[in-house]
Amino acid sequence: MSAYTATVTVRLKHGVLDPEAETTKQALERLDFDLEDLRSADRFEIDLEAESPENASERASEMAKRLLANPTIHDYDVEVDER
Amino acid sequence: MSAYTATVTVRLKHGVLDPEAETTKQALERLDFDLEDLRSADRFEIDLEAESPENASERASEMAKRLLANPTIHDYDVEVDER
Repeated sequence: MSAYTATVTVRLKHGVLDPEAETTKQALERLDFDLEDLRSADRFEIDLEAESPENASERASEMAKRLLANPTIHDYDVEVDER
Repeated sequence: MSAYTATVTVRLKHGVLDPEAETTKQALERLDFDLEDLRSADRFEIDLEAESPENASERASEMAKRLLANPTIHDYDVEVDER
């Protein structure tokens, strides 16, 4: 068993409205920043013990499917690093 | 001018309590997942036009300082990729 950190990034699917990101973009523009687009995402860094990076990645994907992401509106990806 | 995407990751500083992450961890444990720790972070993907990656990175850092992060409780980092 080795120690891994799995990073799960949960994004809204393309086409799903994100009023919070739109508001943040407008607030930056009011502060005179020049930007074309802003997207927000949630990032979960999960420390876990696993037999292999593949096993850590599978378990983190399962966590995303069961709890962290809503498959109707979210996409997610998983990255695994050894700690 | 080239098109860049600057990714700003905003995390709570070490030692700042994160009740939402703690609740998420407990919910995963109730679903029989085995994990040691879970940290949450906000990720902003900002599309902007800039003269160089350094300029894009500086502007994104400034956005983090002015609006995206609260320096009392947050750390942030910035990554820049060409689009």
